[in-house]
This record gives sequence, C-alpha cells and structure tokens, in this order.
Amino acid sequence: MTDSRTQPGETPSDASVPKVVVSRISLYLRELQRLQAAGQQTISSSQLGTLLGFSDAQVRKDLGFFGQFGYPGVGYRCDELIRAMRDILGTNQPWPVVMLGAGNLGQALLGYRGFGRQNFSIAAVFDADPAKVGQTIQGVRIHPLDDLPGIVRSRGIRLGMIVVPAERAQEAADLLVAAGVEGIVNFAPVTLTLPPHVDVVSVDLAIELEQLSFAVTNKLARSLGDATAS
Amino acid sequence: MTDSRTQPGETPSDASVPKVVVSRISLYLRELQRLQAAGQQTISSSQLGTLLGFSDAQVRKDLGFFGQFGYPGVGYRCDELIRAMRDILGTNQPWPVVMLGAGNLGQALLGYRGFGRQNFSIAAVFDADPAKVGQTIQGVRIHPLDDLPGIVRSRGIRLGMIVVPAERAQEAADLLVAAGVEGIVNFAPVTLTLPPHVDVVSVDLAIELEQLSFAVTNKLARSLGDATAS
Repeated sequence: MTDSRTQPGETPSDASVPKVVVSRISLYLRELQRLQAAGQQTISSSQLGTLLGFSDAQVRKDLGFFGQFGYPGVGYRCDELIRAMRDILGTNQPWPVVMLGAGNLGQALLGYRGFGRQNFSIAAVFDADPAKVGQTIQGVRIHPLDDLPGIVRSRGIRLGMIVVPAERAQEAADLLVAAGVEGIVNFAPVTLTLPPHVDVVSVDLAIELEQLSFAVTNKLARSLGDATAS
Repeated sequence: MTDSRTQPGETPSDASVPKVVVSRISLYLRELQRLQAAGQQTISSSQLGTLLGFSDAQVRKDLGFFGQFGYPGVGYRCDELIRAMRDILGTNQPWPVVMLGAGNLGQALLGYRGFGRQNFSIAAVFDADPAKVGQTIQGVRIHPLDDLPGIVRSRGIRLGMIVVPAERAQEAADLLVAAGVEGIVNFAPVTLTLPPHVDVVSVDLAIELEQLSFAVTNKLARSLGDATAS
C-alpha cells in the first residue's frame, strides 16, 4: 500500500512525528474526502492549505514527514493522497474497537457515522450493569466485563474507548490494559494512569466551547473598542 | 480581571492568535487545574511543557501572545495563571449554551461534567420531535424549535451546539444563526455553510481514534522491523 509514497524511506517512528502533525493529517484527509465527494480530482498544497487555514509551506512540511507526494505543475491527485494519508494513519485496514460503557454517550457513539467512514467499527460493547448485559443496541450486543479479555484476544482488537462515568474510568482503563488493548480513547473527564506502552487520547468536550468563547469574547472586545474583555 | 497580566498591552484580535495556540491554552489550563487540585502552588514553563509534551520555549511563546506572566526564579503561580488563562478564553464568566437535538448524544452532553468545570452550562435544549418537547432531561426542559429566538434573546445566549442527525445539521445551523448565536459547536459529521461573523468548531469523534491507529500502526511496524505497515 505504499505506491503513492514515491520515496518511502523509513516510516518514521511515532515519536519522531509531532502529534500535532498527525492531527493535521486527519484534517487534510477529511478535506480531501470532502473534495473528492464533490468531484474534484487534483489539488495544490496552497489550495488545501487555504481551505484549512494553513500555509502551503505547512502542508508540504507536514506531508514531508512521510515521503514525497504530488506532481510538478499538477499538485496532488486527491485519490492518491487520500490513500497515502490513510496509509500513514493506518486506516486502509479496518479497526475493530471495544467500548466500555453503554450509557447515553456509548449509545450515541454506536450510531455515529463518522467512525465507519474512517474504517473504525465498534465490535463489542461492555457494561458492568447486569440489566444492560445481553441487550442489543444498533446491532451490537452488550457483554459482561468478564468477556472482555476473550473477545479482545479472539478478534485481535487493539483499540478501546472508555465511555463510563468519571469515577469508574481508571478501573475501565485497567481492564482494557489487562485485556491487551494498546490504545485508548478516554471520554471521561479524568486523567488516566497507564503503562507507557499504551497510548491514550483524552476527549475533552469543553475544549471546543472554549475555542468559541475565546473567539466571541475577542470579537466583542473589538466591537466595543475595549481591549480587556472581562 | 487583568491583574495577572502585568503587561497587558492590547488583547490580540482572534485573527492574530493562531487557533492552535488557543487550543494549547485550553490544554495548559486543564493541566494547571489538575495540579492545583493536587495541591501544587507554582510551576515553571519547563515543568508545564514536560507534562504536556511541549518545550518550555513553546509554553513561553504561547503565553507571550497574551502578556507577561510569572516571576523570575519562581515560575508561575498556579492560581494566577489559571485565572489569566480563563481571562484569555473568556471563561471567568459563565456561558449559557443552547443545544439543538435531544437524542442520545444530546442527553449524554447534558450529563457531561466537563462543561460546568469550565463555566459552560446547557441552558436550554430544543428538538423538532413533538414527543420530546416538554420533557425534562437532567433538569433541563426540551423546547420546541419555535422558542429558540426568544430564549436566545432573553437570556443573552451567544453559543450553540448542534447535536442533530447529519441531514438536519445545516437547517439547525441556519436556525441558530437566525436566532443570533455567534459561535457553534457542530457534532454532526457534515461541513456547515455559515456567514463569516459566526464561528464554528466541528467535533469529529473519529480523529482521536486515528491518532491511536497511527501510534499503534507505527509501534507494530517497528516491532516487526517492517517499515511499511499495511
């Protein structure tokens, strides 16, 4: 799957690529998928940058971490660059994910269409509540926690999501680690303690609101001619 | 509220501060709140950077957008820096937010404790489904969409969240804009068309999983001694 990396070299270790670059690869991929769906076949680094608010130098530098892409005078072919981005992110292959917690957020995530589009699927859901175990939500059965290690092992699952209340999140993380999961998305608003070989990404749903309170506060400050919005 | 900005200068316009800097301010704030809860009173830029994986120069440069903080030989006082970060983000004041959509994700967000900690609260929920209107979830009443403009105006609400199915998200955005909302967090996996005076932040819940598939893929590639994980 490396035909669009014309000078592949070594795939860099994740330690050598700043996390923020990997985040931007995700954003480039989203934009390319959107353009491709609209029928666009090629794009330049400056067009891609402009759409996302980055410079063309930033786009080229980010892609440069992973190889050489594009054609002189043409730019990038959307389909090739999408395949290359997914190769980088590992999402040309499907990723089954286990989810701990079948509350409202868990149920919402089961219906979230953005996962399948990037090749993620929630393969199994686990909950400590005996009343929930055995139920099926959106076609996915809720298992007891005891089944976690067996299902992770038999299906070769590497990723897990924690969608339990804050006070149970560390316990859920320990279970995922013991079952052999290597990466965890944590939706609970607490910091988890994990062994170094397990990657964790925390989702803090208030951060997006803060980006807006910043923007709106500063707009207000400008419109009032007042430099110290309080 | 600017006593911790010892050289305040002008609050920069949001256009002059890169969005990524504002995101990092949110991360610094989270870490400082965590440290303060654990009893820590002061911190250096290099300690703060190390905890989050940034250089001390990066931390100082980011804070430098907003003024001069800290004391020579002491570093930053956690309480002062927290207050300053919240001043920057606008979250020393409460932000009531309207939410469109009372499905599973909406209900999960109503119970999410991370909002209140940063001074956001869901003030009112709206849904197009007559069966849901009038119900109360987590103490918040579900209103019909017709009530949106009146409630936004009477309570001076500036921020909204879209938690409706993808195919109804643009319609929801248009209603929020017409009601006078200035910033929108969009949880639906679609790109919205909005007038330039309205800020939007899209939440793509698959991006966190992609960060992990990248990390895990590259770990695997290294452990196999194979540069092209596929």
